[in-house]
Parts: sequence; structure tokens; C-alpha cells
Amino acid sequence: MCKECGCGELNHEENILPVGREILAENAHHAAHNKEHLQKIGVVMFNLVGSPGAGKTTLLEKTIPALSREFKIAVVEGDLETDRDKKRIDSLGVPCFQICTHGACHLDANMVHHALHELELDDSFDIVFIENVGNLVCPADFPLGEDFRIVVISTPEGDDKPEKYPTIFWGSDVVVVSKMDLIPYIDFQIDGCRKRSYEVNSKARFFTVSAKSDDGFEKWLEWVRWAAKTPR
Amino acid sequence: MCKECGCGELNHEENILPVGREILAENAHHAAHNKEHLQKIGVVMFNLVGSPGAGKTTLLEKTIPALSREFKIAVVEGDLETDRDKKRIDSLGVPCFQICTHGACHLDANMVHHALHELELDDSFDIVFIENVGNLVCPADFPLGEDFRIVVISTPEGDDKPEKYPTIFWGSDVVVVSKMDLIPYIDFQIDGCRKRSYEVNSKARFFTVSAKSDDGFEKWLEWVRWAAKTPR
Repeated sequence: MCKECGCGELNHEENILPVGREILAENAHHAAHNKEHLQKIGVVMFNLVGSPGAGKTTLLEKTIPALSREFKIAVVEGDLETDRDKKRIDSLGVPCFQICTHGACHLDANMVHHALHELELDDSFDIVFIENVGNLVCPADFPLGEDFRIVVISTPEGDDKPEKYPTIFWGSDVVVVSKMDLIPYIDFQIDGCRKRSYEVNSKARFFTVSAKSDDGFEKWLEWVRWAAKTPR
Repeated sequence: MCKECGCGELNHEENILPVGREILAENAHHAAHNKEHLQKIGVVMFNLVGSPGAGKTTLLEKTIPALSREFKIAVVEGDLETDRDKKRIDSLGVPCFQICTHGACHLDANMVHHALHELELDDSFDIVFIENVGNLVCPADFPLGEDFRIVVISTPEGDDKPEKYPTIFWGSDVVVVSKMDLIPYIDFQIDGCRKRSYEVNSKARFFTVSAKSDDGFEKWLEWVRWAAKTPR
């Protein structure tokens, strides 16, 4: 495992430049600060990562209305440009802050620190969902102070993703496979995908969902409810 | 100098790396198998890691009696030699299987696979605790198919452990600091330890316990109860 970022890539640390080390150390410092702040006010943070178009915003659109009676929820949207995703979340009636990275390939803990303050989170809130920039690689190196990281992959991306992009699976708590309704039309073996996921990270839970048919959402929601009540 | 073992032999790492990769791949395969088996029978597995003498067995001695009315529990004990720890667990009246590694520095997923079969775990069980070999380094590289990894550090080891041994903290879900009753007699800053833990792994929960005074156990037990009910 890499001694610098923990990513698991053999000898990765040898490729990290000293300037990279400084950036990771500064990010770790801000992540710790976010964590302590959120713990103090009793808010649980979820960091959603995945490729562009994997279905992260759709997952939130299905999840938030189902949970909004039980939990007070806020959202941080991360995008290179535009507030298109924020507008979709706004229509759900929960507070949402948009971070535009203007080209940066991931959110970092300092951006999220700023967003949490802008949202004026206090102890009346229970959950904050972060939707990271669409990217199956770089967000792996930048913890945000979250309690749980969820990697969303869609069936059209292929069932080999855990094996081909292991760094982001290593540190994730949950794998959500979206767009299950497309399986009849593509070459995607769910059992193979699950096996590869466990081989890369045997701790991660594995859920399958279809926003079209609603299949699988109850299991996923059951997990979110459980996770939102994590003692610490 | 060899980048793997530091032996000074030119290009040595090129010869040993492929072997290392094969071992890790085989372990991953067995871990995935353990995971699927335990999921099928609804058993949640916890992997306890930590230095020799960190207090792993004591933590089990306090945890198991407190939970044994709610959960059916089994234990796998990992040690280089002797069944001393198994005898302590046997006296709690729960099934326990001893793995003696005869010198090996960590448990691997295949050893645990064998132990799970010897224990004849079935769906009447809820929890299996693995107590790994006392070692704050090597078990980090060998997932066993567990749902949660817990790293136990004791106050006399010093508050700098997360920073000095980051690999084992990176993939752990929980940090338990034991022997808190010794703080008046040693130089150990709990706030500094917590901050370092979050900087290395901001997702991990952080608990402090004292087996002497029982301080902190209720919070830890609350977490175990919650974790044992993980949906997946």
C-alpha cells in the first residue's frame, strides 16, 4: 500500500512529488477539522464519488425525498462548471451549496470546509451529502472528513471497474451499481462485478439500483438510515 | 538498494515483487470468498488488529459478556504460538478457534476461511471476532473478508502511533485507545492522538476505553451493536 496516500498502489509514494506531499498533508489537516466540526454538531457526512454520468445526482434525487421526513439533510454539489446539479437538488427543497472547481478534478477538504460554513450547518441537521466532481480516480486521494465514502458505478461503464480503478474502491464503504435496468441490453455480469469489488475491498457493501424501476432502493435506503445513526 | 527489503542487492525488488503481487491476489480471492460466505449466513466479521499487548484480548473479554445476550458470537484467535488467548476466550463460554501461525506475522484470508469452517458457523450466529496476530504493520496488507477493521492502541505506546504507522490506520473503521487509566502516569495527549488519527483517516471513529474503570465501554459497545446490524 502507498505510504503517502494509502491508496494501495504498489510504490505509488515514489511517484508523489514533495509538493504533492504538502498538498495531501494540508488536505488531511482540513479533513480532520471538518470531521471534528461535524462530530460536534452530530452531522454525518457522505462523500459520493464516481465517473461523470454514473448517476450520483439521480441517486440523491431518489434518496433525499425518501429520507427527508426522518433526517434534516443538506447537500454540497461539486462540479467543474455550471449549477445544473444544484438546480436539481434545489427542487427537492433541501439546502444545497454549489462548488465550482473551475477545472480542478476533485473536491478538497478546504473547499468542503468553506461550503459547510456557507450552508450554516448546525445541530438541527443530521446528514450532509457531498457529490464529488465526476471522476473515478482523483477524489480517492482527497478525504473530505466524511464518515462514509460511496462509489457509484453504472452498468454501461462495464463490470471490470473495481479491478481497473482500484484506488477509489479501496477506501470506499459502499459500492452502488446504478442503471441495473440496462443489463438486458449490455454485456455486464453483476456477479463478476461483485466478486471483483470484494477482491479489491472486502469490507465494502455492494448495492444494485435502478432509478427507472426503483429496484434495490429499499436496501440502499436501509443502509443510509443505518449509517446516518453511526455512533462515534 | 532494494526498494522492497532494503538488502542492497541490485534489482532484487524486480524478483520479489511478482511473488508479492501473487500472494496479495490470492489473499484477495480468499477474502472475497469469506465475505460472500458470511453474508449468506448473516454473520458480521470484525478484525481486531494492534501491537502485542495493546489490549485486544482484554477488549474481547469486556465486549463479549456485554453482548452475548443479544448476539451469538464466535471468536478466531491468531497467535504465533500458544493457546493462552483462546483459553481466556473459552472461559467466556463462546466458541473459539485458535490459529497458530508458527512465526507468520499476520493472519491471511485462507487461514480464516479454514477457521470459519472449523467453527461450523451457520446462520444462528451473528458476530465473529478475529483477533489478529499482535502486529501494527503487516495485518494491514491482508484483508480477511471482514466487515469492519478495528485498530487497538494502548496509551503506553504513545500518542504518535497513527502518524508513525499510518498503513494500518488507513483501512480501519475504528480506533480504540485502551489503558486510558494510565494517562496520569505517562506522556500521552489524547486530543493530539485523535487529531493525528483523523488526519490519517478522517473516516475512522475514535473511542477511548479503560478496562480498569470501565470508562468508555458503553460508547464502544454502542458502536459494536450498531455495526453488528449493518445492512448489506
